[in-house]
Amino acid sequence: MRLQVAIDRMPLNQAEDIVKTIGSQADIIEAGTSLIKDYGVGALAALKKAAPDVPLLGDIKTIDEGEYEFRQGYRSGADILTVMGASSLATIEKCCLVAKEMQKEVMIDLLECTSEKIQAISIFPQAIYCLHTSVDKGATADPNGDILTFRKQFPSIRRIAIAGGINLEAVRKMKETAPEIVIVGSGITKAADKLQSVQNFRKAMTQNAYD
Amino acid sequence: MRLQVAIDRMPLNQAEDIVKTIGSQADIIEAGTSLIKDYGVGALAALKKAAPDVPLLGDIKTIDEGEYEFRQGYRSGADILTVMGASSLATIEKCCLVAKEMQKEVMIDLLECTSEKIQAISIFPQAIYCLHTSVDKGATADPNGDILTFRKQFPSIRRIAIAGGINLEAVRKMKETAPEIVIVGSGITKAADKLQSVQNFRKAMTQNAYD
Repeated sequence: MRLQVAIDRMPLNQAEDIVKTIGSQADIIEAGTSLIKDYGVGALAALKKAAPDVPLLGDIKTIDEGEYEFRQGYRSGADILTVMGASSLATIEKCCLVAKEMQKEVMIDLLECTSEKIQAISIFPQAIYCLHTSVDKGATADPNGDILTFRKQFPSIRRIAIAGGINLEAVRKMKETAPEIVIVGSGITKAADKLQSVQNFRKAMTQNAYD
Repeated sequence: MRLQVAIDRMPLNQAEDIVKTIGSQADIIEAGTSLIKDYGVGALAALKKAAPDVPLLGDIKTIDEGEYEFRQGYRSGADILTVMGASSLATIEKCCLVAKEMQKEVMIDLLECTSEKIQAISIFPQAIYCLHTSVDKGATADPNGDILTFRKQFPSIRRIAIAGGINLEAVRKMKETAPEIVIVGSGITKAADKLQSVQNFRKAMTQNAYD
């Protein structure tokens, strides 16, 4: 299980400072959507520079123009880029082709996707599928329950990430549900002691749920 | 019927030059998604400066974090912003609330929305609904047929825009189907003589289809 720390909704210099502080403790640094819409893909280059050895995910939420956006994103320093599951199959295919060509990774964001839609796009075994509860709808109450339900419904999808209001208690139980990536944002970036917070999440990843 | 010219997938200085050249002939200038992802919302300020008197649409394709993204977009100079129809109802509601508060407009992009989804989000009479064929799937063959079908299926939706490979011939027939906004991108921005091209589209908007 890898810990992805999402950096979002803040000035770029503050984002760079956070990455310098916690970068060594994160498995993946995420440049959040707002950071990219506020500053452009240059935000990717800035965060990559702040922690060159940590894989960088650019949450660009592509929903059309897959080839153009993915080339720009990877060129700007991202190792992983996001495409919306709500996109057309043609868009997701183009993103996967660019990723393969450039030897990078794709995350498919399942925000607001119906079961029918997930079934239709479940044909990319190399992609990571992100179970994602909308910020605007509030966090999911039971991320581990969501993962179990998802695994039952879509057994062919092996690479799973989970995002949306994930807290320490949920992470402690993830040893059982075993997503490949757990994504934490403001739970770390809004903590008074961000380094301590990310270390707490790391510890929770390895702790027994019922210690 | 208003003509919206979409400026996309080019360096920002080139986009500014095009806006200066054709701005007076456009009813709405669109800062395309790639421009915003490449340069951030600063691209909106730049295009607004290039044609201060022309309404500016920022195609920011919000799909979550509606309040944050819409505030940033309007503050940066946009008069109209886009939210994906594929978003949660909560996200679209937040976008509409910010628009109302800031006395701006909302366009809901119907890219890849099912009929059920369109029905569920057809409750915002102040919003403009954009029938949109994905760049990655290729242009629609019959935009006017698409408008007619849409109007029959969703009679409560009055404000309609159409985008996706719109050519002069299609625009000539739009006097009959009467979308509120017709969106043209590379048909104008890739023409050798861009000013002549936008004037041709203006003329087509008022011409009889069978002249």
